[in-house]
Amino acid sequence: MTEEKNVQEETLPTEAVTAEAPVDSEPIDIDGDGLETKVAELEESLQASEEKYLRLYAEFENYKKRTRTELETEKTYRSQAVLRDIIPTLDNIERALSQTSADASLTKGVQMVYDNLISALTEHGLEKIEAQDQPFDPNFHQAVMQEKDESKDSGIVLEELQKGYKLKERVLRPSMVKVNE
Amino acid sequence: MTEEKNVQEETLPTEAVTAEAPVDSEPIDIDGDGLETKVAELEESLQASEEKYLRLYAEFENYKKRTRTELETEKTYRSQAVLRDIIPTLDNIERALSQTSADASLTKGVQMVYDNLISALTEHGLEKIEAQDQPFDPNFHQAVMQEKDESKDSGIVLEELQKGYKLKERVLRPSMVKVNE
Repeated sequence: MTEEKNVQEETLPTEAVTAEAPVDSEPIDIDGDGLETKVAELEESLQASEEKYLRLYAEFENYKKRTRTELETEKTYRSQAVLRDIIPTLDNIERALSQTSADASLTKGVQMVYDNLISALTEHGLEKIEAQDQPFDPNFHQAVMQEKDESKDSGIVLEELQKGYKLKERVLRPSMVKVNE
Repeated sequence: MTEEKNVQEETLPTEAVTAEAPVDSEPIDIDGDGLETKVAELEESLQASEEKYLRLYAEFENYKKRTRTELETEKTYRSQAVLRDIIPTLDNIERALSQTSADASLTKGVQMVYDNLISALTEHGLEKIEAQDQPFDPNFHQAVMQEKDESKDSGIVLEELQKGYKLKERVLRPSMVKVNE
């Protein structure tokens, strides 16, 4: 028994050894398969990460382009609101100047005010819309009257009833006009 | 020698075998090593890619914050330039109104022009700088004269010589003042 036991004890280590060999190489095999899986997973993750980066990059570029345009537009038309709100003041000064006055000094002063104001506003892009004798353009003119003048072409602005103004291509106020039928 | 050779030859296979075991497992080992290297490389690349993404993300966020601030500032102070350039017109109208005129109608008209203009500009943020009887503030006032008035505190604005204006916290033109010594 002791011998059997001894044999068993002898074989056990042998079994243990043969068992150990596969066990020893098994981690390598498993490692091999595991590593291949890991490589595949990592390659997938890397690709996903690179794609995520490229999407963000594209989004960033679009954002830059959009905000640059927004900021440029904002700067181009920055004076729009204040210019539009000053137009009635121009009307008022013109009305005051259109009346003959006994006070030549005051009239001269008001004329100077008007000239300086127009000059300052022009600096900031204010532009009078051409109307008189121009072909009627619904983008810039508002027809409030019609008349028939045989001596002129049809659709021509016969009279400007109220001045119109624009800032670059934006209309601040259309010209009020009388159009030839 | 032959025995030696034999021994050598005997030992060679043994060596070969012992060498072969590693050789047999070597492709696995090389694969294993190759895969492990590959895994390490991929992990490094993945980390680098993620870090690249995070840097871009942070840059994008900063850019957003910066342009948002820039756009807000631009909008807040959009009227600054045109308001500043209209201030002399206000001076001119005030000067015209300060003179007594024989033409009450024109004077009334000019007063209306002035009121409407001030109202429009105020809508766009124009604000008169308080000066009279205020403590002198070099951020808003420009001292052009000094006087000694014992009845008032030192450093108090005794007289506003020319109106000053601001837009929010930005000075468009400082008040010209006479200060108490």
